[in-house]
Amino acid sequence: MSRAFYIGRFQPYHYGHQSVLERIAETADEIIIGIGSAQLSHEVNNPFTAGERVLMITRALAHLDRPYYVIPIQDIQRNALWVAHVRSMAPPFDRVYSSNPLVVRLFAEVGMAVESPAMYERETHCGTAIRELMLNGEPWESRVPPAVVSVIREIGGVERLQQIAGSD
Amino acid sequence: MSRAFYIGRFQPYHYGHQSVLERIAETADEIIIGIGSAQLSHEVNNPFTAGERVLMITRALAHLDRPYYVIPIQDIQRNALWVAHVRSMAPPFDRVYSSNPLVVRLFAEVGMAVESPAMYERETHCGTAIRELMLNGEPWESRVPPAVVSVIREIGGVERLQQIAGSD
Amino acid sequence: MSRAFYIGRFQPYHYGHQSVLERIAETADEIIIGIGSAQLSHEVNNPFTAGERVLMITRALAHLDRPYYVIPIQDIQRNALWVAHVRSMAPPFDRVYSSNPLVVRLFAEVGMAVESPAMYERETHCGTAIRELMLNGEPWESRVPPAVVSVIREIGGVERLQQIAGSD
Amino acid sequence: MSRAFYIGRFQPYHYGHQSVLERIAETADEIIIGIGSAQLSHEVNNPFTAGERVLMITRALAHLDRPYYVIPIQDIQRNALWVAHVRSMAPPFDRVYSSNPLVVRLFAEVGMAVESPAMYERETHCGTAIRELMLNGEPWESRVPPAVVSVIREIGGVERLQQIAGSD
Amino acid sequence: MSRAFYIGRFQPYHYGHQSVLERIAETADEIIIGIGSAQLSHEVNNPFTAGERVLMITRALAHLDRPYYVIPIQDIQRNALWVAHVRSMAPPFDRVYSSNPLVVRLFAEVGMAVESPAMYERETHCGTAIRELMLNGEPWESRVPPAVVSVIREIGGVERLQQIAGSD
Amino acid sequence: MSRAFYIGRFQPYHYGHQSVLERIAETADEIIIGIGSAQLSHEVNNPFTAGERVLMITRALAHLDRPYYVIPIQDIQRNALWVAHVRSMAPPFDRVYSSNPLVVRLFAEVGMAVESPAMYERETHCGTAIRELMLNGEPWESRVPPAVVSVIREIGGVERLQQIAGSD
Repeated sequence: MSRAFYIGRFQPYHYGHQSVLERIAETADEIIIGIGSAQLSHEVNNPFTAGERVLMITRALAHLDRPYYVIPIQDIQRNALWVAHVRSMAPPFDRVYSSNPLVVRLFAEVGMAVESPAMYERETHCGTAIRELMLNGEPWESRVPPAVVSVIREIGGVERLQQIAGSD
Repeated sequence: MSRAFYIGRFQPYHYGHQSVLERIAETADEIIIGIGSAQLSHEVNNPFTAGERVLMITRALAHLDRPYYVIPIQDIQRNALWVAHVRSMAPPFDRVYSSNPLVVRLFAEVGMAVESPAMYERETHCGTAIRELMLNGEPWESRVPPAVVSVIREIGGVERLQQIAGSD
Repeated sequence: MSRAFYIGRFQPYHYGHQSVLERIAETADEIIIGIGSAQLSHEVNNPFTAGERVLMITRALAHLDRPYYVIPIQDIQRNALWVAHVRSMAPPFDRVYSSNPLVVRLFAEVGMAVESPAMYERETHCGTAIRELMLNGEPWESRVPPAVVSVIREIGGVERLQQIAGSD
Repeated sequence: MSRAFYIGRFQPYHYGHQSVLERIAETADEIIIGIGSAQLSHEVNNPFTAGERVLMITRALAHLDRPYYVIPIQDIQRNALWVAHVRSMAPPFDRVYSSNPLVVRLFAEVGMAVESPAMYERETHCGTAIRELMLNGEPWESRVPPAVVSVIREIGGVERLQQIAGSD
Repeated sequence: MSRAFYIGRFQPYHYGHQSVLERIAETADEIIIGIGSAQLSHEVNNPFTAGERVLMITRALAHLDRPYYVIPIQDIQRNALWVAHVRSMAPPFDRVYSSNPLVVRLFAEVGMAVESPAMYERETHCGTAIRELMLNGEPWESRVPPAVVSVIREIGGVERLQQIAGSD
Repeated sequence: MSRAFYIGRFQPYHYGHQSVLERIAETADEIIIGIGSAQLSHEVNNPFTAGERVLMITRALAHLDRPYYVIPIQDIQRNALWVAHVRSMAPPFDRVYSSNPLVVRLFAEVGMAVESPAMYERETHCGTAIRELMLNGEPWESRVPPAVVSVIREIGGVERLQQIAGSD
């Protein structure tokens, strides 16, 4: 059995993440989704809590026909310990997917290859773009699965983001 | 929709936890299972990592017909902040189940009632008893679901416990 | 009885803070003054220790005819826990005054309204301006109460700021 | 001018502390009262939050004719840094009063003598005794100033202590 | 080239440690000596600072004809991360010597065998015995190398231990 | 006997550091070399672990005819406690060498003069320049002692730096 690990901040979870996860699901038996910087929230670049992000991901993946685990991962500010930290918080895994150069390097130094196809690269930019749209009061809903739109509306996510940015 | 929160250390997950969760599943639409002291492992009282405990719980509950979330919760050593900590890591919930007097009090002080029927009370003792059996090389397997037996065997859990206890 | 909470970094305490506090004193029975980022000192933007700031505020408010509490509040780097943190460190309060958008939002999410009249808004800029004057060796004394001038002189505050900025 | 530093956990503040502080007030111009282990609360040995302890002390000392400062001091778990920590959180002081052997030693190693007359020694035991009375539902009110009785009643302190102890 | 890692708390460094290190020096080209619980000091079981322990070890090993490194290692309270922590603080090593069951297990789980001959086992007891002698004012000097006696005298180590223990 | 303290981040150790240390060795009996920000690694500005930096320094100074200590110093994010932190981790010292304005100020506030001749000032810039050369694939080897070149090659340091910077 193969278990894949995929990490992101998911601020918010969007179609870019979704398509990556659907692709991973084609070859892995189980998927672990790590929520990075889990301790951050109520910041312009990190508006949502770990719990809210758990909810977004779980609902958006309700249709996935692979078992998956959604694990909040708090930062530890010690790059040399990060892989051990992730491994202690997640079930054992044998594959890692990421386009983040630091994540790629840190796993490489413990002998684990990381798959990072070019198609993953635009994800992070996408999160920034969605938060930008929210801040400007422009339509963002088409960028994320409908289940994520519901979660963000329930928690007043757009209002939160606008308010902490000092705009309205 | 009602979402229930239930917390334990699950060192290891056993039939006591299982029966509580099955009971909660009768009335709640969704269940959040918080893994307490998630940062601890490789101790006589806390032998398993958070990731290993996630695996035990998820496999043992594969048959449950309710959506559930398994969330590692690290200790913060600040009782007055603990409820806010739990809420930031878990999806929103409106019910709490626990027989731990501190958990009951902390939620009560923010206005949330906690259900703690007498039947829950023996759980913690049970975890201690199972670790005791493992340490003494006595049979423990009947106390936990078969899926948990598999996980503990895969990770060499009994050997780990015996070794860190300085016995063999 | 009503108790008001007002938070600032007070690097240093100046007439902007003073006028806000005098205004609050008109309607509140008691005032709690939280010293934010209490753990920071000896930085260009945070030159003074929490203890030095306690001294500035207490001396400058010696004439106030309302009981007040001066409470150092260390950062916790977890926005979702910040309100619980403040509440655990301060006596109970029922009003909050702040013009910081994040503070306003965090209290709003636990159901507490924050008063933040436009007049408060220039405060933070003012602190920056005073540190700028100190760094450039220009007169800053008229911006702060005389008691604050004394404290800063006693501790060699201007020399400290100039030295850590690498200028002289 | 002389400023004295006195530290305790004040769980709760009682007549033993009061008489020590009144004695210190006879010779010092100002007094700093450090609330030790400020981050702890809701424990059998540390039931009250820092904010609640600030309130107890301030109200009980309303009659004191000396300026005083009440400063929550969080533990840092690094004995070698503790004096520097205290000094950064409190206004400058030139006298220390304590009967705690570790406090005496730590200040001694930076060259500050600590006054610790035999009369102070029973204080800590006294706190334990009061919590014991509360737990057993016996009368404790005569051991603390009336203002402290009021605070503890307002916050439901006895109920909290009994509940977290698992008794009722 | 082979580099060996040996860890202890060295409270204080004594002949038990010395003989182990001399034995290791017979087969390893270089030795790394990790000072465990480096952040602790001024406690009955951990009286000496990391810096004082560095001094004891370095002076006592002045005659050793092998290059060695003395590295303070702070606790991280996360067993699952401890090996990664040690590796990030120390030069690369390929052998580990310890009789501590937890250390043995943690290295074993990352695939590194630990050598722990029976002769090492009495070390920790020995540290306790020496501190006991110091506390009781009995002769302890013969248990440690002369260089360690000098360091402990210079820093007033016995007085410190007696004072923090509340005895004299 | 005089013992000097010198601190740097040593990312990497280079000839600028070497010449300063050789100069210090002319007047001090022993030298303590503190490795600052010891917990950082795998960052563009802090590519090397503390252990790797220990190795660089120790090998490059093999010829030095003065005893020296190489001590990793983790950041504590509390400037007011930093001197106490350094002192607890290092053997006692009576001289400090640094050109960092904050270090100079922090030691000055506890009454220790810091020597910081103009010649030291270019050091930090030099580290940045070397990392820049590594990133651009240009020759950097002449800027550091041969022993440091060996260490960086053994650990694949240049590849690490290029990879985490997202370039290749």
